[in-house]
Amino acid sequence: MDVIVPFTDRDPKSRLKPVLGAAERRKFAFAMLQDVVTTIEATGHEPELLVPRPLDVAESAADTAAKASEAAEDDAVPESVADRPTIVDDRPLTPAVNGVLSRVADGDTAAVAIVMADLALATPTALHRLFSAGGDVAIAPGRGGGTNALVVRDPGFAVDYHGTSYRDHHRAAAEAGLAVGVVDSMRLASDVDEPADLVEVLLHTDGRSAAWLREAGFEVDDSESRVGVQRGTE
Amino acid sequence: MDVIVPFTDRDPKSRLKPVLGAAERRKFAFAMLQDVVTTIEATGHEPELLVPRPLDVAESAADTAAKASEAAEDDAVPESVADRPTIVDDRPLTPAVNGVLSRVADGDTAAVAIVMADLALATPTALHRLFSAGGDVAIAPGRGGGTNALVVRDPGFAVDYHGTSYRDHHRAAAEAGLAVGVVDSMRLASDVDEPADLVEVLLHTDGRSAAWLREAGFEVDDSESRVGVQRGTE
Repeated sequence: MDVIVPFTDRDPKSRLKPVLGAAERRKFAFAMLQDVVTTIEATGHEPELLVPRPLDVAESAADTAAKASEAAEDDAVPESVADRPTIVDDRPLTPAVNGVLSRVADGDTAAVAIVMADLALATPTALHRLFSAGGDVAIAPGRGGGTNALVVRDPGFAVDYHGTSYRDHHRAAAEAGLAVGVVDSMRLASDVDEPADLVEVLLHTDGRSAAWLREAGFEVDDSESRVGVQRGTE
Repeated sequence: MDVIVPFTDRDPKSRLKPVLGAAERRKFAFAMLQDVVTTIEATGHEPELLVPRPLDVAESAADTAAKASEAAEDDAVPESVADRPTIVDDRPLTPAVNGVLSRVADGDTAAVAIVMADLALATPTALHRLFSAGGDVAIAPGRGGGTNALVVRDPGFAVDYHGTSYRDHHRAAAEAGLAVGVVDSMRLASDVDEPADLVEVLLHTDGRSAAWLREAGFEVDDSESRVGVQRGTE
């Protein structure tokens, strides 16, 4: 099985703007990507990144040449990410992913898994449940109707990430006569998009993403009935 | 195992006020309770309701005597709920639940499960995973750090639903030297408290709660990047 992680470092996690600046969002996005990559490796698979442009460490450094060297180093693509096998496809997410899914039709692999780069709560156990789920298509729905991760084993299936993609993927697979497996996992359902999602990272994980948030001053705020996060002022 | 469902019909689901009136919230709360009760029965257990005051069908009808008979019927406690074994305890949730947990210390039962009444997404499979999870205490965390369902098999454990109860329960159990099982379930993590939660009911269930929402005019709204609900104007 090929395991693909779509990622972009161009203005990532834009819905976190209310609580994080642009540079912070990029760093946090890389921290989550590193957590996801590590988790996939722990399942015995070698993740490939799917990016719209190369994550060029040199370019990244050049971008920041005018800044202090410390800051430039700080902005660089983490080595653990830069060394990964990478597919570059500048099309939007849906056609880029369908490009990779063609490997199944081409007979290059029996299955392709697509795992989103912001699944900071993913564990090897949760991913293993997805990877070993039955079905021509196995889906881990995200909160709000998204498709956070899926495994495709049939060449007759294509993704469409627009709108309520979980429902649409389920319907499309059924209409194509394909068996659909659904994985009921809070960890895989919890993509990190909005400020309210950050508390889940702090409560349920202990990886780079949680460490980054803590260093940035975030902590669990249980003063409200549904717990959120607050950011320290220092 | 005794399975307990705490419930109140006094101003339930207050955080749904932005989208539902008081009478609507009560009816929707009953619809979710009925779904939860049905799901527990499907696991082979007989749920008991834990309520602060009796769900008195007669009283409910008397309350509405001045209204049209149709409206009175509409306001009544559903029969499928009114017939249930019920524990009445007018204390707040935490001491009331701990009162039931004393059954384990008293040797009346080997285990007590507490399942919240707003787990409209729960399925027999998801609940079975919780009920069969190992540990002296097994917890299904809710979104935002709550404790949506748990099983207690040791008399040394007490609940405290205030604040970040998932984290607190986990710590309290560890400090008492108890083994803790955690169930990774999106369905059990999805308590229905806020307007943004309603879309999960529409997307992932087909019970009374979803039917009630559809009849009330709610539908999936996928015009935003994270899908929500909208309510028709008719």
